[in-house]
Amino acid sequence: MKRKNGFKNKDILSADQFSRQDLIFLFQKAKLMKKIVRAGKNSKMLQGKIMTALFYEPSSRTFGSFISAMQRLGGGIIPLQGMTYSSVAKGETLEDTIRTFECYSDIIVLRHPEVGSAKKAALASTVPIINAGDGVGEHPTQALLDLFTILGKFKKIDGLKIAFVGDLLNGRTVHSLSKLLAKMGKVEFFFVSPKILRMPEDLKDQLKNRVLITQVEKLDEVIKKVNVLYVTRIQKERFSNLSVYEKIKNFYIVNKKLMEQARKDLILMHPLPRVGEINPDVDNDSRAVYLTEQMSNGLHVRMALLASVLGKIK
Amino acid sequence: MKRKNGFKNKDILSADQFSRQDLIFLFQKAKLMKKIVRAGKNSKMLQGKIMTALFYEPSSRTFGSFISAMQRLGGGIIPLQGMTYSSVAKGETLEDTIRTFECYSDIIVLRHPEVGSAKKAALASTVPIINAGDGVGEHPTQALLDLFTILGKFKKIDGLKIAFVGDLLNGRTVHSLSKLLAKMGKVEFFFVSPKILRMPEDLKDQLKNRVLITQVEKLDEVIKKVNVLYVTRIQKERFSNLSVYEKIKNFYIVNKKLMEQARKDLILMHPLPRVGEINPDVDNDSRAVYLTEQMSNGLHVRMALLASVLGKIK
Amino acid sequence: MKRKNGFKNKDILSADQFSRQDLIFLFQKAKLMKKIVRAGKNSKMLQGKIMTALFYEPSSRTFGSFISAMQRLGGGIIPLQGMTYSSVAKGETLEDTIRTFECYSDIIVLRHPEVGSAKKAALASTVPIINAGDGVGEHPTQALLDLFTILGKFKKIDGLKIAFVGDLLNGRTVHSLSKLLAKMGKVEFFFVSPKILRMPEDLKDQLKNRVLITQVEKLDEVIKKVNVLYVTRIQKERFSNLSVYEKIKNFYIVNKKLMEQARKDLILMHPLPRVGEINPDVDNDSRAVYLTEQMSNGLHVRMALLASVLGKIK
Repeated sequence: MKRKNGFKNKDILSADQFSRQDLIFLFQKAKLMKKIVRAGKNSKMLQGKIMTALFYEPSSRTFGSFISAMQRLGGGIIPLQGMTYSSVAKGETLEDTIRTFECYSDIIVLRHPEVGSAKKAALASTVPIINAGDGVGEHPTQALLDLFTILGKFKKIDGLKIAFVGDLLNGRTVHSLSKLLAKMGKVEFFFVSPKILRMPEDLKDQLKNRVLITQVEKLDEVIKKVNVLYVTRIQKERFSNLSVYEKIKNFYIVNKKLMEQARKDLILMHPLPRVGEINPDVDNDSRAVYLTEQMSNGLHVRMALLASVLGKIK
Repeated sequence: MKRKNGFKNKDILSADQFSRQDLIFLFQKAKLMKKIVRAGKNSKMLQGKIMTALFYEPSSRTFGSFISAMQRLGGGIIPLQGMTYSSVAKGETLEDTIRTFECYSDIIVLRHPEVGSAKKAALASTVPIINAGDGVGEHPTQALLDLFTILGKFKKIDGLKIAFVGDLLNGRTVHSLSKLLAKMGKVEFFFVSPKILRMPEDLKDQLKNRVLITQVEKLDEVIKKVNVLYVTRIQKERFSNLSVYEKIKNFYIVNKKLMEQARKDLILMHPLPRVGEINPDVDNDSRAVYLTEQMSNGLHVRMALLASVLGKIK
Repeated sequence: MKRKNGFKNKDILSADQFSRQDLIFLFQKAKLMKKIVRAGKNSKMLQGKIMTALFYEPSSRTFGSFISAMQRLGGGIIPLQGMTYSSVAKGETLEDTIRTFECYSDIIVLRHPEVGSAKKAALASTVPIINAGDGVGEHPTQALLDLFTILGKFKKIDGLKIAFVGDLLNGRTVHSLSKLLAKMGKVEFFFVSPKILRMPEDLKDQLKNRVLITQVEKLDEVIKKVNVLYVTRIQKERFSNLSVYEKIKNFYIVNKKLMEQARKDLILMHPLPRVGEINPDVDNDSRAVYLTEQMSNGLHVRMALLASVLGKIK
C-alpha cells in the first residue's frame, strides 16, 4: 500500500505529533536511505536545497548527523555552532534570527537550551523548523531513530519487553520514545530508576491505558526478561545537591557480567554520550547497538525526514 | 542594452568603488538570482569554485548569507568563524593568512574588526577579496542590498524622500548607502539623529552637491513626508560614557502608532540586528521590509556579486 | 609503469608508514590534482563521499586545506572546529566520538593535542583516519607536501643539500620530513640550531646510516652551499623558562641580505605560521615558496590523499 507523506512542509517539534501512519511512512523511507548510503550511491534528491543548522548549544553528534544527512542527499549547509557568541550577544530575539535564516535556507534545524524555543521558532518561520533539542523539552529525531532501531531488530512489536534505565525523571529521550512505542503496539515497559528519578506520574498515567508498566529499582530484577535495555546517563547538571548525584551516579553499570544474564535476542541501547553506565567491555557484544545501528540509523532517519519535509520523496 | 561585467576579478572593498553602470549591471543579475531562488532551481554556475568565509568577528547574518549564496550557485565553502582562536593567537599576520587561503580558494570573504583590513588583504591577495565589514569602516554588500531593496520598490529614484534615523555618526551602513543613493538620482535626505550622533560634516559636504539635505532631531517632523524610513541601532559599544547611551538609546522607537502617520507607499528598513528601535508590533505591516525583502535581497545581491566577481555571469 | 594505490582504505598516521613506491604514486596523483585545480576543472571524483574534519585544536591552515580538498573533488564535509566545547565536556571518550562520526562519514581527519590520539582513533574506527597533527607527535600530510615541493623543484634528489633551521628538537615537521627525504635518495643534511634545540640523538642515529649529516649553530656557515633552506618557528609554548626563549627566539632571521648569499637555485621553505624568523622583505624573492608552491601543494597532496584513501583513483 502506498502511504502518504504527512511530513511535507511540516515543522518537526515533538514526538507527539506523529501518527502511526507517519511513523510507518518515515521508516520505509529511512530503509531506502540506508540502502543509498550502504551502496555508496550519490543521491541528488536535495540538490539546490539549503539547510541551516542553528545550534545555540554544543552537540557534535546531532549537528554532525544532520550536516551529513543533508549533504548525502546533495543539499547545501549553513553550519552555525556556538550561536551564543553572535547576534544574541547584541540582544537579538530568536524570532528575528529565525526570520533571517528563513530567507537564506529551505529548512532550519534548531538546537536551543530553552524549552519551547523550537515552537517559538516555528511560529515565526515560513520554512519548516526541525527541533534538534530544546533543553529538557523534546528531541523528536532522537526518539525516531530509537524507535526505528527497535523496529528494525524485531519482526513484531506486540509483546516486546522494554526496560528504561537511569534518570527517567529528566530524560527527554525516554519520555518521547516510550510514548512512540505505546503508539506502535502492545509493548511492556520496565522502568528502572532510583526513587528520586522515577518517570513523571502524569506520563505514567498516560501510558498505563495502553501498555503494561512495572516499576523497579534494581536492574537484576528485569535483566533476564527484557528484549530491549535502554540505558541513559544520569546527568550531573540536573542536580543542585552534588552529594546526591555522587551517591547515585554509579547506580547502574552495564558490564560483561550483567550481559551474560541477558537474553540472546536483547538489544542494548543508549542515546550517548555515556560516561560510566555502560562499560566498554560490552562494546563488542553483538547485542550492543549504541555505537553501530543506533548511530547509523540516526543518519538514515534524518535523511528520510529532511527529504520528506522538503517534499522530495513520495 | 547589454551591460559589461565591471566586477570580474575585482576586489569589493568600498561602496565608493561602484559606478552607476556597475550598480545597474549588478541589480539586473540580482533579479535573475531572485528568480533562480524563487523557482527552486538548482544552479551550477559556481560549481568547482570555493569561497573562504574568513570571519574574525561573529556575524551570523552576513556569514550565513554568503555561505548560502555560494552554495545556491553550486560552489563550495571554507567556513571559518572565530578566527581569533587560531593562527592569530600564534602571532600570524593577516597577510600570511590571506596568502594561505588564496591557495585553497577562488575568492575570500573577509570580516575583520580593524578599519582598512580588507584593503590590506586585497593588497596581499591574488584572488578577489570581498569586504564583509571592517570595523567602523565599510560594509559594501550591506549598502548594495539596501539600494537594491529601494530600487525594487520604487519605479523611479528621482524625487524619493529618504530618512535615516539613529546613530548617523558611526553608522557605516548609512554612510555607504547615502553615497550610493546620491549616485543613482535626485533624492532628498532627512538625517534624523540626536545632536551628538549627527552625520559627519565631511560626508554631508560631499552629499550636498548632489542632493537636498535636511537635518532634524525628531522623527515626527518627517514621518509624514518620507518614502523610505531607514532606522539604525544606537550601538552601546560606541559609547565610553554609558550614562550618555542610556539617555539616548530609546530616542527613536518606531511602533504601530507612528506607522499610522506614515505614507502608504513607505518602506521601513533596518540593517539588523535591532534591539528596541523598531517595535515588533510593526513586523507584520506590509511596509516593513527588514525581515522580508531586505533580508532575501541580501542573498540575491551576494549571489550576483559572487558570480560576477568570479566571472561566471555575462 | 603503472603503480599500485597502496593507500586504499588505509589510515594515514605517520610519515614512517610510506614506502618509496607509495610516495611516487601519491605525487603522480598530486600532479594530476594540480592540473585539475589550475584548469578550474569541476571534478566529481568524491561526489557522494563525506569527510569529517574533527579538530580538537585550532588550525585554520590544515583545516581549510582539507575542507577545500574534499570539496574540490565534489565531496561533502562535516566541519567541526573547537571540539573541546562539545561532547568532551560531557566526559565522552575519543573512541566513542570516532565511532559516532564513522557512522556519518567515509573518512575522518583528526587534529588532537595528545600524542598517539590518531592511532587510538584508528584502532576504534572502521573508516580511515587521517592524522592532521597529534600534539608533538606526527603531522604526516605536512611532511608529504614538503617533500612534494622539494621533488617538484629539483630534477633529481641525489646530491641535494638541505638545511633545517630553528627548533629541531621539538619540530615534528622536521623529524618527519628528514626521514622521508632519507628514504627517497642520497641527500645531505645540515642541522642548524642552538645547542639546546638540536635534533634528537636517536633520530640522528637512524638517519646517519643513509645520509650525510652536518650539525652547526650558525646559518652563515651553510647558506652558500644548500639547495633547500627549511626554516621553522621556535615555539614559545615549548619553553617552561621564558627567559631562555627570549634569548634564542631571534637566533635565526632570514632576510634579504642573507638571501643574497644564497644559491640561485635555492628554495626557501617554512611550514607556517611564522612569527619573525623570515622577514617579509623576502616574500617576493622567487626562491621563497612558503606562501606559494608549498601552500598550494598542501591542497594538491591532500586532494590526492583523500582520493587515494577513498579508493577513487587508480
